[in-house]
Amino acid sequence: MDLHISNILNDLKNDDIQAYLLTKFTNIEYISGYKPTSFAFCIINENPIIYASKMDMEIANKTSTIDVREFESFEVMIKELKEEGIKSLAIEPELVFSTYEKLKDDFDITSKTYINTQRMIKTPFEIEKIEKATEIAQKSFMQLDVLNNKNPENVVAFDLVRLMIENGASKESFDTIVTSGANSSLPHATPQDKLLEKPILIDWGAVFKGYCSDNTRTMVYTESQQEIWDIVAEAHDKAIRAIKPGLKCCEIDGVARDIITEYGYGDNFIHSTGHSLGLDIHETPGFSIKDETIIRDGMVITVEPGIYLEGEFGVRLEDTVAIYKKGLVIGNLPLQID
Amino acid sequence: MDLHISNILNDLKNDDIQAYLLTKFTNIEYISGYKPTSFAFCIINENPIIYASKMDMEIANKTSTIDVREFESFEVMIKELKEEGIKSLAIEPELVFSTYEKLKDDFDITSKTYINTQRMIKTPFEIEKIEKATEIAQKSFMQLDVLNNKNPENVVAFDLVRLMIENGASKESFDTIVTSGANSSLPHATPQDKLLEKPILIDWGAVFKGYCSDNTRTMVYTESQQEIWDIVAEAHDKAIRAIKPGLKCCEIDGVARDIITEYGYGDNFIHSTGHSLGLDIHETPGFSIKDETIIRDGMVITVEPGIYLEGEFGVRLEDTVAIYKKGLVIGNLPLQID
Repeated sequence: MDLHISNILNDLKNDDIQAYLLTKFTNIEYISGYKPTSFAFCIINENPIIYASKMDMEIANKTSTIDVREFESFEVMIKELKEEGIKSLAIEPELVFSTYEKLKDDFDITSKTYINTQRMIKTPFEIEKIEKATEIAQKSFMQLDVLNNKNPENVVAFDLVRLMIENGASKESFDTIVTSGANSSLPHATPQDKLLEKPILIDWGAVFKGYCSDNTRTMVYTESQQEIWDIVAEAHDKAIRAIKPGLKCCEIDGVARDIITEYGYGDNFIHSTGHSLGLDIHETPGFSIKDETIIRDGMVITVEPGIYLEGEFGVRLEDTVAIYKKGLVIGNLPLQID
Repeated sequence: MDLHISNILNDLKNDDIQAYLLTKFTNIEYISGYKPTSFAFCIINENPIIYASKMDMEIANKTSTIDVREFESFEVMIKELKEEGIKSLAIEPELVFSTYEKLKDDFDITSKTYINTQRMIKTPFEIEKIEKATEIAQKSFMQLDVLNNKNPENVVAFDLVRLMIENGASKESFDTIVTSGANSSLPHATPQDKLLEKPILIDWGAVFKGYCSDNTRTMVYTESQQEIWDIVAEAHDKAIRAIKPGLKCCEIDGVARDIITEYGYGDNFIHSTGHSLGLDIHETPGFSIKDETIIRDGMVITVEPGIYLEGEFGVRLEDTVAIYKKGLVIGNLPLQID
């Protein structure tokens, strides 16, 4: 029995629940190796099974380590689960309401984060893939030679993705952000069809064998931009150095936030200090004000403080940290690009 | 008052519900013009309001036609909604369970498709954007000159996206499918790092001002491939000609499915005949076996029959139809590429 599945069986036993329903594509991929391209329902109990859509049967049969059955209808699936004696069902917090509604009259349903909790701790094989994704992304960034690039933002973004694919990525890990000038004060800015202004903020990542990377660099040009950059760099460095198993995630957010606040920019740091990543670009836990999760070996979490001055510019610096005894920054891209 | 909002107010009144909660990004974009880049909660009643995340406040204030307030916590939002006298709340079927759980003790909650139903009928302005997206996508496809392309599948996919962006798209409307040889029997194949084999199947689309396009072409080379292609083309053409307001969506699926079944390939047509598109690449209604929605003027639905022979190859042909009195294929790309 696969370790991931036996862990879930333990969780179910402890909570006296008979089965766990997974629908999120990356959760099913994590458990079975099969990543749905259409809806799918994965039922974990002693006899795990995946109900896949007809159009996915070929790929599911080729890739899944769990038995696959063709989904016919909710009625049939519910009948078969009840015939197996399943009365209580754990669901993912992300389950959509319409599916919950189809199941709620036939099962005693409880929302459980079993799989999210397992996915927090990466195996060495998972970390290797994140490292490789990061290596591809950072190498591509250097090849892009952004400081001498004369293209509009959206073409620069595009060229960065092309380089990542040429270097072995399957795709970008999220919509690549290339933003510049006043737009850099938008944390999730969309690249525009306009030439690069200053400063230039690039937030990008690659996917390698399903696993994501995530980095941000900001290239500043004036004294006032450099002043803000220095504060963000200090928050970035000190937060990374503070990471230690046993601390709470919110304590690392506190380190970055306190530094930025001391310099008077607390209100301009408008997001969390970081998020986990893996098969998804955003996973739990995160370095945020409210996240009390205890940091443990095997977690992989970004550190990305930022200061955003509306109408002027923004600065964000981001690296991804694999936690082994102490935090270890993945990759070797300099923070200052020049 | 915006027409979209007043329609929802009517729906709420008819069902005696006080407010409608929207969380899906494209639903909020449809109603307000602001497309969230992080979580957001849009409450529609006589005084509509959007609770946006701190990091989205700048872009939300710039783009939303509805008042925006910064989201602090579920507790604060629930308290403010209750102070407004809201006791009953309609939600989207797509709402995630964890959010439902946070609200269920304070409100009487019902799942409603008001907004999906409204989004079914496109305005002329929306159809124009879908037409423009299709024009960009088809022009880019022709520029790609796939029959003389010597690159691997994933580079061809990439080059098609680049052409779409150069031609004015903001991005691809879904992960571009360039697949060939035996892999073409997977409806949602991932482009591989291998040279194009035969047949070649390309399923692609552009996004223009938020609106999606969707087309598929299959280039066949042998007599047996051409034989399958001819059947799919017949199903494609006859299904399109059958589209008429007043019919049920499942009747159009039936036209395509009956033809493919008569030729003995019913079991190899492993998905629905088509889906609506707009701000999302997959919207309701669809030309599927079970969809009894009545076809109406203003719907925009794809027609994409396919035959998939596992281990051999697959053929799919797809066009998008804007329904005005009778179906009208968007774009003018020939079905047979040579």
